Amino acid sequence: MFSGRFDQLVQALRILPSVGPKSAQRMALHLIMKNKEGALNLAHALNEATSFIHECNICNSLTENEICDICLSAERDDSLLCVVESPADVMAIEQSGSFRGKYHVLGGHLSPLDGIGPDEIGIPYLIQRLSDGKITEVILATNATVEGQATAHYVVEATKHLPVGMTRIAQGVPQGGELEYVDSHTLSQAVHNRMRMK
Amino acid sequence: MFSGRFDQLVQALRILPSVGPKSAQRMALHLIMKNKEGALNLAHALNEATSFIHECNICNSLTENEICDICLSAERDDSLLCVVESPADVMAIEQSGSFRGKYHVLGGHLSPLDGIGPDEIGIPYLIQRLSDGKITEVILATNATVEGQATAHYVVEATKHLPVGMTRIAQGVPQGGELEYVDSHTLSQAVHNRMRMK
Ligand SMILES: [Zn+2]
Ligand SMILES: [Zn+2]
Repeated sequence: MFSGRFDQLVQALRILPSVGPKSAQRMALHLIMKNKEGALNLAHALNEATSFIHECNICNSLTENEICDICLSAERDDSLLCVVESPADVMAIEQSGSFRGKYHVLGGHLSPLDGIGPDEIGIPYLIQRLSDGKITEVILATNATVEGQATAHYVVEATKHLPVGMTRIAQGVPQGGELEYVDSHTLSQAVHNRMRMK
Repeated sequence: MFSGRFDQLVQALRILPSVGPKSAQRMALHLIMKNKEGALNLAHALNEATSFIHECNICNSLTENEICDICLSAERDDSLLCVVESPADVMAIEQSGSFRGKYHVLGGHLSPLDGIGPDEIGIPYLIQRLSDGKITEVILATNATVEGQATAHYVVEATKHLPVGMTRIAQGVPQGGELEYVDSHTLSQAVHNRMRMK
């Protein structure tokens, strides 16, 4: 439609998550008709971000430096390590404001059928991090999926020999969750993990 | 989160229509973690599109050339002109496959309170286009909003002296529209504009 470069922009926008052909067209038109400056700014931000953002040398989360701000922070508890699957999980936990320790990003979960074993998600490096004695508790915050659970269990097994406490984030009914809309697996977990009130 | 350039990318993505803070974060993470090549390609497409796409000298739709493909096409009916508010409307009508004439993009609608009068939406230029005698029918396809209706009526008045037929796109219940979910104004229009079947 309109021109080759318009179609190329629509195609290029399709790589964004949950952007279908109609949204991509609407976005392209909006940028060209109403916000060329914003479009140029977005192009610049994309170039900058892809060039300068990479993995932290310690936790594997994202940073522009060698070591990320969280790893460098002296105000965060060095004895507490939260193990997650991806930087998106670091972001979610940080935004919940519920954790003041450090992180370890696995970069995925165990998935034997896809050839993703312990080495592919850096379990040896995690063991190495846990071996220096500074970390006393690990919070396993991998996803509450079959793969995330299996990964958490694997970490527990693989670090059995180390004197490090391990906890798993709680599973249950989400805040505000109306029971009739909660899936039955979650509900059965929530009943099983019920907590005493008196 | 993560770094200044990450936050800048999230902010830059916010200019996209219907992209809120959470989606922008998800998009930024997706691009950096999973599709750096796609991100660079998008940056390139944005730069190209903003530099090369502009208004057609004849119809005001979008093109990379002086005159757009539709205006240049010898296969489209020169005697039929569809007047729309924006290039997005040209795209929508083209994709409906229901029109084989030429277009005229007003670039907006009358909105006296915002200081947008006939000159601001190029009514004099539309009259000029209609004056050379080639165009015999104008389809007024401005939006079915109060402003779009007023603009259509204004065009009819302003071109009264010209021997050009004018039609307005039909208004009614959309295809597949279940009556209980159609707003009452649309429904009353649909009853008023009812068509005889036998
Ligand atoms: Zn780090
Ligand atoms: Zn044109």
